[in-house]
Amino acid sequence: MKKTLVAIAALAAFGAASAQSSVTLYGRIDASIGNQKTTTGGVTVADPGALISSGAHTGSRWGLKGSEDLGGGLKAIFQLEQGFNIDDGTASSARQFHRGAWVGLDGGFGSLKVGRQYDITHTMYGKYDPFGYSGFSAMGYSFNVGCGTGGSGNCVGRQDNTVMYTSPSMGGFSIAAMWAPGEDKTAAASAGKVYGFMANYSNGPIAAGLGWQSNKANAVGANQARTDTNFGASYDFGMAKAYLQLENGKNKNTVGTGKDSGYGLGVVVPFGAASLTAGYAAEKQKVAGTKVSDAKAFSLLGKYDLSKRTYVYAAYRRGETDPAGANNTTKVTKYGLGLVHNF
Amino acid sequence: MKKTLVAIAALAAFGAASAQSSVTLYGRIDASIGNQKTTTGGVTVADPGALISSGAHTGSRWGLKGSEDLGGGLKAIFQLEQGFNIDDGTASSARQFHRGAWVGLDGGFGSLKVGRQYDITHTMYGKYDPFGYSGFSAMGYSFNVGCGTGGSGNCVGRQDNTVMYTSPSMGGFSIAAMWAPGEDKTAAASAGKVYGFMANYSNGPIAAGLGWQSNKANAVGANQARTDTNFGASYDFGMAKAYLQLENGKNKNTVGTGKDSGYGLGVVVPFGAASLTAGYAAEKQKVAGTKVSDAKAFSLLGKYDLSKRTYVYAAYRRGETDPAGANNTTKVTKYGLGLVHNF
Amino acid sequence: MKKTLVAIAALAAFGAASAQSSVTLYGRIDASIGNQKTTTGGVTVADPGALISSGAHTGSRWGLKGSEDLGGGLKAIFQLEQGFNIDDGTASSARQFHRGAWVGLDGGFGSLKVGRQYDITHTMYGKYDPFGYSGFSAMGYSFNVGCGTGGSGNCVGRQDNTVMYTSPSMGGFSIAAMWAPGEDKTAAASAGKVYGFMANYSNGPIAAGLGWQSNKANAVGANQARTDTNFGASYDFGMAKAYLQLENGKNKNTVGTGKDSGYGLGVVVPFGAASLTAGYAAEKQKVAGTKVSDAKAFSLLGKYDLSKRTYVYAAYRRGETDPAGANNTTKVTKYGLGLVHNF
Repeated sequence: MKKTLVAIAALAAFGAASAQSSVTLYGRIDASIGNQKTTTGGVTVADPGALISSGAHTGSRWGLKGSEDLGGGLKAIFQLEQGFNIDDGTASSARQFHRGAWVGLDGGFGSLKVGRQYDITHTMYGKYDPFGYSGFSAMGYSFNVGCGTGGSGNCVGRQDNTVMYTSPSMGGFSIAAMWAPGEDKTAAASAGKVYGFMANYSNGPIAAGLGWQSNKANAVGANQARTDTNFGASYDFGMAKAYLQLENGKNKNTVGTGKDSGYGLGVVVPFGAASLTAGYAAEKQKVAGTKVSDAKAFSLLGKYDLSKRTYVYAAYRRGETDPAGANNTTKVTKYGLGLVHNF
Repeated sequence: MKKTLVAIAALAAFGAASAQSSVTLYGRIDASIGNQKTTTGGVTVADPGALISSGAHTGSRWGLKGSEDLGGGLKAIFQLEQGFNIDDGTASSARQFHRGAWVGLDGGFGSLKVGRQYDITHTMYGKYDPFGYSGFSAMGYSFNVGCGTGGSGNCVGRQDNTVMYTSPSMGGFSIAAMWAPGEDKTAAASAGKVYGFMANYSNGPIAAGLGWQSNKANAVGANQARTDTNFGASYDFGMAKAYLQLENGKNKNTVGTGKDSGYGLGVVVPFGAASLTAGYAAEKQKVAGTKVSDAKAFSLLGKYDLSKRTYVYAAYRRGETDPAGANNTTKVTKYGLGLVHNF
Repeated sequence: MKKTLVAIAALAAFGAASAQSSVTLYGRIDASIGNQKTTTGGVTVADPGALISSGAHTGSRWGLKGSEDLGGGLKAIFQLEQGFNIDDGTASSARQFHRGAWVGLDGGFGSLKVGRQYDITHTMYGKYDPFGYSGFSAMGYSFNVGCGTGGSGNCVGRQDNTVMYTSPSMGGFSIAAMWAPGEDKTAAASAGKVYGFMANYSNGPIAAGLGWQSNKANAVGANQARTDTNFGASYDFGMAKAYLQLENGKNKNTVGTGKDSGYGLGVVVPFGAASLTAGYAAEKQKVAGTKVSDAKAFSLLGKYDLSKRTYVYAAYRRGETDPAGANNTTKVTKYGLGLVHNF
């Protein structure tokens, strides 16, 4: 049955008893002017000058989502989301619905979603970061997401083939568990997999959570296995909301056992239609007890709401990555003045 | 704020006289967990273990379609449809609207549609198969669609550059004709082309049809020319609906004249909100009178409707392909437990 | 007629005071049958025979656009548009929103749009051409858009990273300015850039405008810099509307200074629901004062409206390009019979 799409509210307006179908076409556009300059050991590596950018603060995207009432409190839910670049019209990935593609059921038991979606660690990163782990986030600069040397083959972020269960809130307390089986099973090796758990508490001004995730590749090698543990908390003092996040990663591989541990701090101060957000984060990475690199970053974001759906911002981030060795620190300075429109 | 999209037609219902325009945003998502194991000569060739899949039963897709009343019973109609994979967010083809892209006119004369669309043979396959020739279809496993050895260069399925005329129903009787000219004309050779005809009858519990299609490549070679003839019928006994399909393909090429002939049987038994569908199909392929391969498959599908738009299913298919030669039979066993949501 | 898919907020207009949000899903499909034959020096180079085509007259596309009332006469506006081919379902470009992707603000000051959009010269081309510089346009055939030999590296057309300001109409007079900084700055060279201005006047039957644009590459070379100057005018006599356009391009590069100058004429004659459009355009190109090539084209388009959103057309264009040298004139003859449906 194909339906021309009518809002729940629209059907309700006719006075009908059941208003069970809806599809929502939505999106977000972030256009800005700014620059990002990179130096290594004091020498400029990249400085493209004034740039028109897309998603410097929050990724431009459009998507479809919907829910259908199945009766008895049960709903079918789905979401399909593509990222794009407003500056040149390109997609942000060759994947059609790179940013998310899932379907599921939602009801008294919680929700069960199947498809491509954010994993536990990335969800934690976003939840306890006042920048939402987006473009100007200090945590986004500093935290190792597990790719490359010392990391696992599966990066922290969005995962394919994911089954995610999220419990309902029970007195402010909820849990979630994910399982994402790989498709690379061979005669010689099991498939890789990603799985994890998190527990969150939210009640009035306080929120806190603990997450754990394991990324396993299907083969022994440089990127064999990684686990991430995260703790996050926020408290809303009214005149300001403060954030804290601690993260700890371990990886086991043929080049030795790696460890990275970091922390992030943040604060949002509202001023009527405006707000000021600041963040700081740092992380140390070691392999077999020896320093690989230290990273730290500081961010500042000023927002002014033009409406509920549209705001302008000015943002700045300065990050430093100091690898083992002398005079090779990389410094990345990014700033932008932008407009964000939600539709 | 996210807004659910409402057509003017819906608004017009509030009082306006004419509500002639509409664009419908629609889709379908099939997510499942299951596996597909393949053995050849008794040796396991592929067995990826538990897999989260998209479209195991029916392809995940989204699209736009619409119709405009032109007056005098005439309508402009169109459809654009993209397939995607809910498990990883990828498109199911590099083509944007791989599953269909056409525009046309519909009226008392029937309909005339121009663009990329299903051809005659594939339409017949779908119409007289209780599985709709989709992922668990026994006919889908067994019937040769004309690609590869002994087939024509143009596979049966969706065709580009297609003009499709479908007559209105005249006492239950209707006809359709298609013509799809190739774009590969050279000084030395005519362009390839696909054309075909079908006649269908549908009245109360009975339906039956006959189709014929020719696929011609632009060059003499291994895949020079192919014709397909199909007969299908279904009868609804009330407590069950039975299906029959016979198909016959001939191809002429430099490696000799090939023939394939097959049949399919199916039945759907409804049980209130649930139903059970079973199918069996077999086909024999020969080139120059010598066996190339025999194929057969058996399928079972149980569905339970959660609503008009959403259902869960459990499905199983076992297929065997026995090529000429000893101890080389390929057996493919596929099963899945899934959720299908239409929007 | 474009149908705005209206948000819940819009429905609130049936009772609430403000209806400020909307997203519109829209599109256009052009399907036709025709052919395009090319000869060079009298020898047929291409003649693919009867072809089903997409966008022969006007590009098939779909998109999202919207506006949000921010109060005080200010609006947030955006548009995302993808081209596709109705004949085979492919996208018309690997870029997701190839045809346009921008966001901006609109108000008493005019509008400011940021992203991928038409540049000044292409906007002028379209505004003073009765064919809208589309598929059968004589100007589209004849006018050099600045790519290739003697042109600049940045073609005239759609530009990335573009900031476009358009003033409000002041007694029929309006101006626009664009600036599109390149992203190819290196230690040795500034980034390329495109910038331009136009002024237009429109009052009753008369319209006229002047545009100027500069395309600069980031390097000295064969395609170093180009400027385009355009003048256009139209007058509506009631029984017919006449168009005139003059264009002049200069380029500076290592192979010598190139110049191209051309003109276009057009007329649209309405006959009730039908109309006849004719156009002629010619251009001469020289490098260092020596002829590179002369181009000229003649076009004819008959339209018949089936509704406000749908029409059929028959169109013809014959173009000739005569490069320096003997017996090497290329002649391109294109015709088509098509249906255009807007949604």
